[in-house]
Amino acid sequence: MASPTREPAPNGGPIGREDSTLDRIGRMLMAASFAQPQGQQWFGDDAAVLGTPPEGSEILFCTDVAVEGVHGNFEFMSPQELGWRAASSTLSDIAAMGGSPWVMVASVACAKHASIDELMEGVVESAAAFSCPVVGGDVSEAATTMVSIAVIGHVPRGTAVTRSGAHAGDTVFVTGPLGGSAAGLAAFQRGEEQIESTLRNAYLRPVPLLAQGAAARECGISAMIDVSDGLSIDLHRLADASHVGFELTSVPVCSGATLDEALGGGEDFALVMTTSDPEGLRSGFEDQGLEPPISIGMITPEHTQRIILGESSSPMGWVHDV
Amino acid sequence: MASPTREPAPNGGPIGREDSTLDRIGRMLMAASFAQPQGQQWFGDDAAVLGTPPEGSEILFCTDVAVEGVHGNFEFMSPQELGWRAASSTLSDIAAMGGSPWVMVASVACAKHASIDELMEGVVESAAAFSCPVVGGDVSEAATTMVSIAVIGHVPRGTAVTRSGAHAGDTVFVTGPLGGSAAGLAAFQRGEEQIESTLRNAYLRPVPLLAQGAAARECGISAMIDVSDGLSIDLHRLADASHVGFELTSVPVCSGATLDEALGGGEDFALVMTTSDPEGLRSGFEDQGLEPPISIGMITPEHTQRIILGESSSPMGWVHDV
Repeated sequence: MASPTREPAPNGGPIGREDSTLDRIGRMLMAASFAQPQGQQWFGDDAAVLGTPPEGSEILFCTDVAVEGVHGNFEFMSPQELGWRAASSTLSDIAAMGGSPWVMVASVACAKHASIDELMEGVVESAAAFSCPVVGGDVSEAATTMVSIAVIGHVPRGTAVTRSGAHAGDTVFVTGPLGGSAAGLAAFQRGEEQIESTLRNAYLRPVPLLAQGAAARECGISAMIDVSDGLSIDLHRLADASHVGFELTSVPVCSGATLDEALGGGEDFALVMTTSDPEGLRSGFEDQGLEPPISIGMITPEHTQRIILGESSSPMGWVHDV
Repeated sequence: MASPTREPAPNGGPIGREDSTLDRIGRMLMAASFAQPQGQQWFGDDAAVLGTPPEGSEILFCTDVAVEGVHGNFEFMSPQELGWRAASSTLSDIAAMGGSPWVMVASVACAKHASIDELMEGVVESAAAFSCPVVGGDVSEAATTMVSIAVIGHVPRGTAVTRSGAHAGDTVFVTGPLGGSAAGLAAFQRGEEQIESTLRNAYLRPVPLLAQGAAARECGISAMIDVSDGLSIDLHRLADASHVGFELTSVPVCSGATLDEALGGGEDFALVMTTSDPEGLRSGFEDQGLEPPISIGMITPEHTQRIILGESSSPMGWVHDV
């Protein structure tokens, strides 16, 4: 948290803007009414002291970064929404393993034109909505605003759902229609004044499907991934990890979106699942009061066979130029 | 990891630059010969699956971000060194709790003029040097380069050393002379061609004092903090958290540094400790073959009494303007 490239703060002042910012953030966290369990020590020390995860569970760990101008543009997206997105996309990675979130930390690099309080408000809103307290963080000034979130989750030991377990003959499911986020962004970029709330929210307020991911794990599915970069590319990744092919016979497209947006738009944070027991998966979701997932195709044995709607498919979706 | 603000990758190409970057980073991690324990699943899925921390321990969790132009300038510091610094400063937070590192994740936002491979090389070097495998990450392009690290550590249950346990009458120790990092930076800024290696390394290659932090914990010290923003401001933070005052009678200054650099320069990552048993602390360090810490003053009962070398002290050090 130091920066010797700058002059020391003047002697005699208060303990400094950064400390008062951290104090404000600390109050924001308390107001979000996370209950710090006895014996734990969150926020305010060098590291958070957390006890142990639930008996019989094992730990999941992941990180995601949201960058101004890449993952969101302040022309269309508020700092709160960038903070929400960073936290929610990281939580979606926990959902995609079938896990439960436990705690998160946030590193926020904040440009002059953004407000760290607003960025953190978005992070804390997501943290509160999905029961994953913010227990620590770091702040820095920067030329570009960036929010990086790391989440510790947990899952009953040995039950984490990876990308690599799909088998030939498994049915492929997705939790819902796709392309909403890309269509929402496109509408903002066209300068539309009345953007349908489904598309607007899909882009600005993505929701990690934690209940669906856990329900799918309980149904004994074989593999899962979240659609962060596009159904096409993410399904290719699942197939690569599982050494299988796939044939998609339908692609549910979000109302107002195009097929290309559904296949390649990304950031929908839907979950793609494969299972040898499609009926069990549907009824497992229904038993928990969840909208049943949509069957979209099959896993095939030949690794190089990748077919979407009758055509051979190459990965389509967003990849960073790094 | 998605970005609908950009066009989808063209159909028909390979799975994309980001994926090949992640593959390269994966190979880099394997080459660092971290041994993935049976049953764990690192890197390459939505989240890492980690098992559980050692029996009888509890979890520590922290994050730090290093930002180009704030924590380091590519005029003086290579991308590897920025990566090293991000990882090492986060590990220093684990050291300051008396903990042992377990695993880390890295979020890297990379500008065109930096190389993600070089940034990650520095992260992996630090990870390997301090036995804290990189088990996951995220990458993004960005206008400014930033490396955010989150570390899970562990400590025997109930023994984490916080900032808040100092008592009046405790002796204050520091692990070594201060100001080297600030003096090293100043030498770079003056354009010196022959910078003494101690100062150069203090700035470019800070070392988290994990063995010292753990030894201090085993000696039953009352409070600890790492000097990330400057001895003065960090000691004020410890005193604030402990509701005590302090009187420093000596400040060990790194050869080639000034007293101001030692008090306010920051980024030394020395550990400041307080204890009611100074002899026990010294002999505990010696028993482990560690350089004994240096006594620099006392903790005093009056919360408002903050004295350094005979003068009343206000916090001096780096605070971010956020």
